[in-house]
Amino acid sequence: MAGNTFGTLFRLTTFGESHGKAIGGVLDGCPSGLELDLEAIQNDLDRRKPGQSAIVTQRKEPDTVEFYSGIFEGKTTGTPIGFAIHNTDQKSKDYSHIKDSYRPSHADYVYDQKYGFRDYRGGGRSSARETASRVVAGGIAKQVLATLKINAFVSQVGEITLQKEYKELDLTLTESNPVRCPDPETAAKMEEYIKDIKKEGDTVGGVITCVAQNVPVGLGEPVFDKLHAELGKAMLSINAVKGFEFGSGFEGVKMRGSEHNDQFNKDGSTKTNYSGGIQGGISNGMDIYFNVAFKPVATVLQAYDTIDKDGNEVKAQGKGRHDPCVVPRAVPIVEAMTALVLADFFLLNRTVKL
Amino acid sequence: MAGNTFGTLFRLTTFGESHGKAIGGVLDGCPSGLELDLEAIQNDLDRRKPGQSAIVTQRKEPDTVEFYSGIFEGKTTGTPIGFAIHNTDQKSKDYSHIKDSYRPSHADYVYDQKYGFRDYRGGGRSSARETASRVVAGGIAKQVLATLKINAFVSQVGEITLQKEYKELDLTLTESNPVRCPDPETAAKMEEYIKDIKKEGDTVGGVITCVAQNVPVGLGEPVFDKLHAELGKAMLSINAVKGFEFGSGFEGVKMRGSEHNDQFNKDGSTKTNYSGGIQGGISNGMDIYFNVAFKPVATVLQAYDTIDKDGNEVKAQGKGRHDPCVVPRAVPIVEAMTALVLADFFLLNRTVKL
Amino acid sequence: MAGNTFGTLFRLTTFGESHGKAIGGVLDGCPSGLELDLEAIQNDLDRRKPGQSAIVTQRKEPDTVEFYSGIFEGKTTGTPIGFAIHNTDQKSKDYSHIKDSYRPSHADYVYDQKYGFRDYRGGGRSSARETASRVVAGGIAKQVLATLKINAFVSQVGEITLQKEYKELDLTLTESNPVRCPDPETAAKMEEYIKDIKKEGDTVGGVITCVAQNVPVGLGEPVFDKLHAELGKAMLSINAVKGFEFGSGFEGVKMRGSEHNDQFNKDGSTKTNYSGGIQGGISNGMDIYFNVAFKPVATVLQAYDTIDKDGNEVKAQGKGRHDPCVVPRAVPIVEAMTALVLADFFLLNRTVKL
Amino acid sequence: MAGNTFGTLFRLTTFGESHGKAIGGVLDGCPSGLELDLEAIQNDLDRRKPGQSAIVTQRKEPDTVEFYSGIFEGKTTGTPIGFAIHNTDQKSKDYSHIKDSYRPSHADYVYDQKYGFRDYRGGGRSSARETASRVVAGGIAKQVLATLKINAFVSQVGEITLQKEYKELDLTLTESNPVRCPDPETAAKMEEYIKDIKKEGDTVGGVITCVAQNVPVGLGEPVFDKLHAELGKAMLSINAVKGFEFGSGFEGVKMRGSEHNDQFNKDGSTKTNYSGGIQGGISNGMDIYFNVAFKPVATVLQAYDTIDKDGNEVKAQGKGRHDPCVVPRAVPIVEAMTALVLADFFLLNRTVKL
Repeated sequence: MAGNTFGTLFRLTTFGESHGKAIGGVLDGCPSGLELDLEAIQNDLDRRKPGQSAIVTQRKEPDTVEFYSGIFEGKTTGTPIGFAIHNTDQKSKDYSHIKDSYRPSHADYVYDQKYGFRDYRGGGRSSARETASRVVAGGIAKQVLATLKINAFVSQVGEITLQKEYKELDLTLTESNPVRCPDPETAAKMEEYIKDIKKEGDTVGGVITCVAQNVPVGLGEPVFDKLHAELGKAMLSINAVKGFEFGSGFEGVKMRGSEHNDQFNKDGSTKTNYSGGIQGGISNGMDIYFNVAFKPVATVLQAYDTIDKDGNEVKAQGKGRHDPCVVPRAVPIVEAMTALVLADFFLLNRTVKL
Repeated sequence: MAGNTFGTLFRLTTFGESHGKAIGGVLDGCPSGLELDLEAIQNDLDRRKPGQSAIVTQRKEPDTVEFYSGIFEGKTTGTPIGFAIHNTDQKSKDYSHIKDSYRPSHADYVYDQKYGFRDYRGGGRSSARETASRVVAGGIAKQVLATLKINAFVSQVGEITLQKEYKELDLTLTESNPVRCPDPETAAKMEEYIKDIKKEGDTVGGVITCVAQNVPVGLGEPVFDKLHAELGKAMLSINAVKGFEFGSGFEGVKMRGSEHNDQFNKDGSTKTNYSGGIQGGISNGMDIYFNVAFKPVATVLQAYDTIDKDGNEVKAQGKGRHDPCVVPRAVPIVEAMTALVLADFFLLNRTVKL
Repeated sequence: MAGNTFGTLFRLTTFGESHGKAIGGVLDGCPSGLELDLEAIQNDLDRRKPGQSAIVTQRKEPDTVEFYSGIFEGKTTGTPIGFAIHNTDQKSKDYSHIKDSYRPSHADYVYDQKYGFRDYRGGGRSSARETASRVVAGGIAKQVLATLKINAFVSQVGEITLQKEYKELDLTLTESNPVRCPDPETAAKMEEYIKDIKKEGDTVGGVITCVAQNVPVGLGEPVFDKLHAELGKAMLSINAVKGFEFGSGFEGVKMRGSEHNDQFNKDGSTKTNYSGGIQGGISNGMDIYFNVAFKPVATVLQAYDTIDKDGNEVKAQGKGRHDPCVVPRAVPIVEAMTALVLADFFLLNRTVKL
Repeated sequence: MAGNTFGTLFRLTTFGESHGKAIGGVLDGCPSGLELDLEAIQNDLDRRKPGQSAIVTQRKEPDTVEFYSGIFEGKTTGTPIGFAIHNTDQKSKDYSHIKDSYRPSHADYVYDQKYGFRDYRGGGRSSARETASRVVAGGIAKQVLATLKINAFVSQVGEITLQKEYKELDLTLTESNPVRCPDPETAAKMEEYIKDIKKEGDTVGGVITCVAQNVPVGLGEPVFDKLHAELGKAMLSINAVKGFEFGSGFEGVKMRGSEHNDQFNKDGSTKTNYSGGIQGGISNGMDIYFNVAFKPVATVLQAYDTIDKDGNEVKAQGKGRHDPCVVPRAVPIVEAMTALVLADFFLLNRTVKL
């Protein structure tokens, strides 16, 4: 239970440091007989990879996944799917400056305290590079859930907020711009803003909204493993995430029960959806939607004061190729984690009735 | 993995329906040799129980816990602690109206869909009554973590928001008023507001803030079981919760990295604490603080339209003794779940170094 | 993971000490909609309980199970089934002699070493009394697996061995004698032998054979959770068990592959069944059969030398009401654990194919 | 929980098919700061690998392990250790004959039934090749447990039984002969016997005995996760294993309690050790010893009748390079699984006392 495994039946275990030989994982419990679209998986990896546009880090990591097992004649066999992404661009020199001092609001200090020492190259295990493995497994989960639609998009960058609800948006436009905001006008403003931030060597936070549609009724296991509790854990486990809300979320606090309650239609669907598609921890067939808050990336390309291992004050300078804002690349990660949660509950739900 | 177990090493499994014979649980993995203060546990139960003030449900449930095992001569033995809270006030008649129709924004509909039928009495397993078992186990967890301070309090009711940060507050005042808001002036407004809402037969949401202090550095397991990810799951598993944020949370999104980064002092503490005491998923020794959003209680004492099991439209009327606002009674639940998460990571952290 | 939970989806957690207030458990993951035959469960408890015949302990423990949750209108609801068996005959005085010294080949010494102290009354948690909770849960598992036949019986007591294979026996005769050996002639010898042993204040070991029939093809999860590996763990977790073998077992070691291989019939069944119904860790539809070895009960009613907590040599005397041979009462326990394993894999197997 | 993970805190997940691209695994929860002796690990792999002597399969698989993560500057970092063994000698043609028919007493039939189809090349996931990953992880576990001695050896091949107890043997002689029996005279007989069997194209079973010494008191978690229950599961999860017994085992059944009980010395050690170093599921500091029964290898190089997927009777012929007796190569596997179990309980035991 050392923390590198996610899921119960559809279960991913990942390994790998930012600048080690390879990252990768084992996906256990994927049902047999699934004809895998490997291109779709690689496509999700490409949406996450560095260097894809001017507003993300310019590192060059092709992030090509190699599958080792669990697939035969193009189909999953029901045995564990082992995979690896080999590191090719290991510019370790870029990170020599972090060997001897702690970067503020990174995991350097706590890793040293917890484990006694750390692989400091590129952040080691604490690097968001690990999430590439999640995108691979999530890509498979999406195919297990072929009838579902899972769409994440950027709904806020810094102070710039998308003023429309997801129902008013054409989510097919998400990939039409480098920010991954489906409203082209807002996307343009966000892109401009990120570029400005980048010029200053600074960073800014953002919010990703995710919508899961066509979800069958019944997913989620009360009482601790409520569907939204697992979704929340999944999102909060992504690097830089600071908050999660679903349905009416923090705003719903202000409402009265009489207006917040979702009245039923005759078919069991509801007239409103403040519940966000989940009631009592179980999906009710309505759209599931939630927001995920990302803090500004901690690595700023500026000089700063900090301490070294022995508590001495030292001066340091942020350098390297980093994201000024993490949300555009985090969109496929949010989708992947959503798919992992839903696939797990989808399988669990097969065991509930006699 | 049917969802009624929480934790890895310090592990709670609960059982029980609102109007069954008893609710209760088994706490496994509690270290041996802990001298238990049973009064403190009962005290937390009393903070959660119905009927304690004019602004909560007037149901009468003494909620007296009986311990069956795992304690000998006043101390924990290291074996599982079994316990039960017997139900005494089973006014089943109050709930006969929900047998044949679905209450909006309750779990009635999804339970029927998922399991084929449901124990409809008082909401059955989906009732927040289950959380009493969590308070028992959390009370033990608090004693395992005797050097830590875990304080939750109400920071918002409807539109009324506590305008001070937790550091400006005297948290010992939390219990001085029925709302459990440590700012007496704000508390008075909230109390008034809840009373008004109650008169209308309506309900309203709220926010609970929780602060954990004196937490040792090193708790939390990357990458999936980050400390805040487990805290988030723990909170989201509480009935009526719609959102979770820690540290700078959703507001932090708007900040620049250069201002959001927490600069180090020489002793490893930080000058600011936007990180909320957690970096890279691991506690860094600073105060952990987070907000939990609760929706308005779904049961309103008003007439409403809904459907029955067969999809027929029916008229129904909310009745019974319910909370107009859930947050005052949820304060000890938030503390209990926080303690459960921290106790588990506290034990796990003993296994990390050679 | 403190060791008091068994199973993944169909999952039992037990609690309770021999002479505490109650023993019991929580069975989570039982599918909804099962009409429970509570008498059948109590009947299995009666087969395990003390005082049922002249060759078992004469303690009086009615072992009546009380269900707290998870059952509504006679059917399982899919929520956790909490239950307790209250202790009524707590003759604590019988055990005062073990408070200050360690009984040889009991768990007294290791519990003190592991936990720092122990509930010494009647062996506390290490008492086989705990297995009553397993019999309750196993009784439910049997009903989940209504089409399967699970029959255990005594096949050896000391040197007296049942010389017939299970196929030659009429297993309905197992309950016809107090030894629970389905061969009346052998049973009579065993009974006589146990009575002799008892007169001497001594004890003796035995073997239980278990046969599971009508098991569907496909149960068991490679590679670590092979069906026979879980069965083996389940059996070895029963008090006093020293060995487990299935199919050809230890004898099969001497065979050639050419004779040991089970040739197929056209329908996938096999002409022989040295495999014991399991190949590659997965049930193949043939009868599953295995042997479980029980050591002689450690409590002998004789004087013995031992040590106290401080390492001083002391003299002690076995007393109380104990079993001269444990296997007659262990038959329903073996069946219960078999049913728990099979029910878990039965549910898991629903999740394997797309 | 699809069965490819072993252990709770010290936890191995494996992947890979016999003739896929690679086999490997992820070892999570290995404590940080362990200086790894990689040669010792490769040495264990070499003890398991094919082609090492005349009495084992003549396949050529170098089985060189490549580590991807979790190790930095020669030491474990506390993060997951990912590793792979790439397949180099993929003679797929050898196995084309098994594509269309089921080999008796193999997993071919049950895999097809369970998963709908199978990777038939070399047995796919059901091949014992998977155990190489266990040997890697077990090699690390041995180093975590540096003060323990874990020695397995062959004690029976077919009818030839080692007539000495482990205490009479010089276990350093185990590696002095290809059979891995520490008694040279018996080893010579076993070797001759295996060669004869091999000439006939037949196979034979065997028994491995394992001894763990210097085990601290207190390992093992009652009640389900008894030390010997986990050891039993670990052993039974190894391919071809049919039985497990520890301490007095099946023979102990015949003894009286008065002779079987292990009397204490003043230091808590015992005068005899019928308990096999485990009482109440917890190690008592005495030597742990147990026997593991292996059936004859199912692949015989002879003609046989069988069925195909559609239930037609077909004739087939065993071919390829196979082991006539599996026990010599299984010795390091037994040691590895023993080390995995003990390392896990070693870490768990740190969490037991306050």
